[in-house]
Amino acid sequence: MTGKTRDNTIYIGKKPTMSYVLAVITQFADNEEIVIRARGRSISLAVDVAEVVRNRFVKDAKSTVIIGTDQVTGNDKRTLNVSTITINMKK
Amino acid sequence: MTGKTRDNTIYIGKKPTMSYVLAVITQFADNEEIVIRARGRSISLAVDVAEVVRNRFVKDAKSTVIIGTDQVTGNDKRTLNVSTITINMKK
Repeated sequence: MTGKTRDNTIYIGKKPTMSYVLAVITQFADNEEIVIRARGRSISLAVDVAEVVRNRFVKDAKSTVIIGTDQVTGNDKRTLNVSTITINMKK
Repeated sequence: MTGKTRDNTIYIGKKPTMSYVLAVITQFADNEEIVIRARGRSISLAVDVAEVVRNRFVKDAKSTVIIGTDQVTGNDKRTLNVSTITINMKK
């Protein structure tokens, strides 16, 4: 992978589940494979998004999941560990 | 796998992260492989537990992650879908 941003990646934040589901379905129109990424408390939502897509919209999609840890520097310069999830979905 | 409960499984609920980290480390003393399971909002905590174990205590552990959906019947007899995560960790 080069340094360029992969535009088939959906980052999960604090919007409602269905906003991200729609984003994933839109990406799937142009790509065989999409990537859902989240950190911290948004990890549960990332799994919800992947499962809603697979159960309701792209029924033959296969998910591969990788978990990891990112180091984040807060406002007070302390380093915090935050868990991450990367869900690869393939049609 | 037979119908019997696997006692190397840790179910993640609402306790503090380190309670589950301790439970995982204890299970790893007797088993080469342990399983962390969670549903819904506890999924983020399950990933935190697996990552704390791997980063601080069992550094050579490998995680394999599977996501899915369980159907739950609420008090009002309606069926709800809830996302699940299963993290297999192997020393």
